[in-house]
Amino acid sequence: MTSSAKKSVSATSVDTTDKAALNKKQSRLQQVFPILGWLSQYRKETLVNDGLAGIIVAIMLVPQGMAYAFLAGLPPQMGLYAGIIPLFIYALLGSSRSLAVGPVAIASLMVGEAVSQHAQPGTDLYITTAMVLALLVGVVLLLMFILRLGTLVNFLSHSVITGFTSAAALMIAFSQLKYVFGLEFPRGHHFYETLNNLTINLPSLNPATLVVGLTAFFMMWFSKNHLAAALKKLGASDLLASSMAKAGPMFAILAGVGMVVGFDLNDQYGVKIIGEIPAGLPSVSLLPFEMDWWLGLLPAAVLIALVGFLESVSVGTALASKRRERIMPDKELIALGFANIGAAFGGAYPVAGGFGRSMVNDASGAQTTVASVITASGLALTVLYFTPWFYYLPKAVLGVIVIMAVLPLIDLSGIKKTWNFNRADALTLAVTFGMVLVAGVEAGLLAGMVLSVALLLQRTSHPHIAVVGRVGDSEHFRNVKRFEVKTNPCCLGLRIDENLYFANTRYIEDEVMAIVSEQPQLQHLVLICNGISFIDASALETLEMMIENLRESGITLHLSDVKGPVMDQLKQTHFLQHLAPGQVYLSTHEAMRDLCDL
Amino acid sequence: MTSSAKKSVSATSVDTTDKAALNKKQSRLQQVFPILGWLSQYRKETLVNDGLAGIIVAIMLVPQGMAYAFLAGLPPQMGLYAGIIPLFIYALLGSSRSLAVGPVAIASLMVGEAVSQHAQPGTDLYITTAMVLALLVGVVLLLMFILRLGTLVNFLSHSVITGFTSAAALMIAFSQLKYVFGLEFPRGHHFYETLNNLTINLPSLNPATLVVGLTAFFMMWFSKNHLAAALKKLGASDLLASSMAKAGPMFAILAGVGMVVGFDLNDQYGVKIIGEIPAGLPSVSLLPFEMDWWLGLLPAAVLIALVGFLESVSVGTALASKRRERIMPDKELIALGFANIGAAFGGAYPVAGGFGRSMVNDASGAQTTVASVITASGLALTVLYFTPWFYYLPKAVLGVIVIMAVLPLIDLSGIKKTWNFNRADALTLAVTFGMVLVAGVEAGLLAGMVLSVALLLQRTSHPHIAVVGRVGDSEHFRNVKRFEVKTNPCCLGLRIDENLYFANTRYIEDEVMAIVSEQPQLQHLVLICNGISFIDASALETLEMMIENLRESGITLHLSDVKGPVMDQLKQTHFLQHLAPGQVYLSTHEAMRDLCDL
Repeated sequence: MTSSAKKSVSATSVDTTDKAALNKKQSRLQQVFPILGWLSQYRKETLVNDGLAGIIVAIMLVPQGMAYAFLAGLPPQMGLYAGIIPLFIYALLGSSRSLAVGPVAIASLMVGEAVSQHAQPGTDLYITTAMVLALLVGVVLLLMFILRLGTLVNFLSHSVITGFTSAAALMIAFSQLKYVFGLEFPRGHHFYETLNNLTINLPSLNPATLVVGLTAFFMMWFSKNHLAAALKKLGASDLLASSMAKAGPMFAILAGVGMVVGFDLNDQYGVKIIGEIPAGLPSVSLLPFEMDWWLGLLPAAVLIALVGFLESVSVGTALASKRRERIMPDKELIALGFANIGAAFGGAYPVAGGFGRSMVNDASGAQTTVASVITASGLALTVLYFTPWFYYLPKAVLGVIVIMAVLPLIDLSGIKKTWNFNRADALTLAVTFGMVLVAGVEAGLLAGMVLSVALLLQRTSHPHIAVVGRVGDSEHFRNVKRFEVKTNPCCLGLRIDENLYFANTRYIEDEVMAIVSEQPQLQHLVLICNGISFIDASALETLEMMIENLRESGITLHLSDVKGPVMDQLKQTHFLQHLAPGQVYLSTHEAMRDLCDL
Repeated sequence: MTSSAKKSVSATSVDTTDKAALNKKQSRLQQVFPILGWLSQYRKETLVNDGLAGIIVAIMLVPQGMAYAFLAGLPPQMGLYAGIIPLFIYALLGSSRSLAVGPVAIASLMVGEAVSQHAQPGTDLYITTAMVLALLVGVVLLLMFILRLGTLVNFLSHSVITGFTSAAALMIAFSQLKYVFGLEFPRGHHFYETLNNLTINLPSLNPATLVVGLTAFFMMWFSKNHLAAALKKLGASDLLASSMAKAGPMFAILAGVGMVVGFDLNDQYGVKIIGEIPAGLPSVSLLPFEMDWWLGLLPAAVLIALVGFLESVSVGTALASKRRERIMPDKELIALGFANIGAAFGGAYPVAGGFGRSMVNDASGAQTTVASVITASGLALTVLYFTPWFYYLPKAVLGVIVIMAVLPLIDLSGIKKTWNFNRADALTLAVTFGMVLVAGVEAGLLAGMVLSVALLLQRTSHPHIAVVGRVGDSEHFRNVKRFEVKTNPCCLGLRIDENLYFANTRYIEDEVMAIVSEQPQLQHLVLICNGISFIDASALETLEMMIENLRESGITLHLSDVKGPVMDQLKQTHFLQHLAPGQVYLSTHEAMRDLCDL
């Protein structure tokens, strides 16, 4: 019912109309703010669950935030800020109940790569550029929503994602080794620079730093793999045990700070620490506009938006499907878009839904985005009151936290499986992986996307064409090379297993003509179209030429098993007149029975 | 028989082996030089045919060559040179008997666009750059042969070609109007500049030039459409009549020169003439190498090579198929590659097989590439002895010759047909057409190629999914929405009309799950795979996830009508174990009979 139609309703029904309008308004509000739908049914138990999950994620996010900011070449507080305003915004707008938004590893790497091409690390310009990048990422996400381009992530194939993620994780892990070994060299733009710098500088490694790093590593490894079991043996509750197991990074930080302070490792042994983190909430900042500068950042912003959105949607979908729910990709574009714009003006850098933290958030019992509000509040308290506690935090510990977070992303079994299944996919994976390491994350991702499309075209440009025959006395026709079938030399059935479009029309024409030239007695050629879902203008042109060429050789072309949508399309042209006296048969069986009594 | 196997043959058979080796050598030579195969059967009548066709094409090519060189911003003799050495080379190496190689309209436009970005028209650098471009085009073509990339032209869809050719022809025609109107303004880089310049300068048009131009236009129009009939009425033989009809450009030139000389149009009325054309054969020139300069020309060279190869192969294939022969695209790459390298060192600019001239060559009776040798000899004689004759040739006549040559390329009926058949193709055509006019030929061609691939992905990313039922008592299953069919609420047949790959896996998963959620009684879901020719790694991942999700809802997934190659691929993984207890059925009929007695 349109609004003008509503206006013509008589006065007696005004009340109902008002109520309907109210309901409609409510549901519209709910559409914009999914949280309203949950809050109306919000109960105390839910708050307990959300609260616990929010606190556990905050405990993970504090060290991760600082570590990821480091990875992006930014001061640690920016990683903490990235866990405040964006989370409040996501809580209001997001459609996933348990996605944990914030700074993430791969986007941080991409931010570092992109920003360091426009500014020197450590400068104010570097920081401002990262914030502008967050704004651009937000705008790109909103544009993707407006232009309905959310489906763009579908063009990232599994192989591209696996190759990209594995290589990026490897780069991230190696980039952190300098902190773990206590080496000092400038950030390299390429993986081989990092490797080279590591090798050259290895002799000057700082043993005390390495000890701190290895201790952190051991504590995190133990927490993750054995702490829960150990605590349960000691009689702890399941909840406590599993919560403690997730606090590994926090333990590592405590141990690290303890060692530095206890043994004066910073002054006496040269263990690098974070130093002062400015306390207090971030101030809302205005961003300077300069066309060239912004435009230069745009390509990076598009890729970061794409990767960030992909990670968020993937993990969001996985978590939602466990409860037989669905997330709404469009809503996610809006929520992540505004979260990034919030990040930009809230002194942070690009954010996304993190894989690891979201899993923890869900496993810890988060039921609504109220959990995110709790996490954000935790981070706000941290930057307000607890930053001095991290003064003595060794950089080596942050390095280990990053390494532990990204190692599971290196998907060796996925690589092996892809290799076994499909060499084209394996090639895409290998090229993406290699290009990320050799030419950087952006170039690698683009190369992978281009290659996956090119290989798709390549694959569909040489379609499988089968000569078919009748299986026994059934109505089925199968490939003569694979089955015992009956054929008739006057009448040939050809099945083309691909859509007919510009990249394969020439090939198909050549192949069909070659097959026909080997059949001197041939009178009727039946093209079996059950594998053809569309025919484009190039193919239509070729088909009409083929009809003529075959006719000149005394052969009539027929079609069978043409799908409905294709038939609709053909009927809009003069094709069927061109085809006559050739016919379109419902099935191959009918065609063969009519044409050659097979 | 390998050569080592041959060596073990006993001495008595040496003679035969030698003969075989000789034959083999001969056939190898023939493989490289297809002309050798024809020459061995060459007879006097063939020479008469070839000779006549060669002369007619030469008469067309002399004015066209000069006009196209003009179009490319080059001096007229370069267009003539482009009809000498490249033609001798093509005659030796080409696989098409009647392709007429030489300067062509669209490539000339592209050369002009590319070269004028690197040098000022009228300078030596401009000329050298055009020659370097010819060398690069040749090298690109040979590389395409070596890398087996000749199939690249298949990725130019019919719509892209139609849009590109039509827009380029329009641009060419408008670019020549200034000569016809006798206006003077610098060459514009964009179509709107040309339009703008034409409008602004129109008031200063030269009436005498326009009269000359219109006379030329009328003579060519009359020759093409009415001369043959008129001559036949006067009792001329068919051969003479049709030959004269093709000499329209030559008549226009004679009339133009006559008018200029007779009425002193150049000095008295300001009709622009060509002026002196240096006589003599081109000297072989060395080309200066400069990395940046050459690299800057490379993108243009790739596109010119692609377009030139496409035009040559299209017309070559069309002509060959009339005699039930085939041209060999690989041979054409070699022949055109060396022809362009010959052009570069022979003082000319990029060449290709021209559409119009090849049709004329064939229609005039050319039977072998000897016709090209005759044409080239004609042009050599022209540059040696006849260039002074063209001194007074008005530029307006050359402009008209170009316009008449390109007008048939504007394919309005093709545009209409594409629009009716398929909106995606029509969009590609329109965008290519528009982009060529707005942003230039290279940008337009690239935009068209990218768009046609993007629309292909878009189209295959939302495949048609049909719920099917049994047609009466037959073994056939068809879309429930299109046919009267029987179904069973426990057992659903779903046909996916597309390959399963990264761009559509998410969509398919969503759709299948949505359909399933509407069928509360469902126990068995049969995916009918006759429209699926391959499954990539992304889709395999999704299918495995789908099996799990369906199982949790108490539904077993089965497959039917799986094609051989797909089955082979699936067997290489653990997919069938994942599928169990779900099965793979040979046909939908078998599946439905076994599962739900339908």
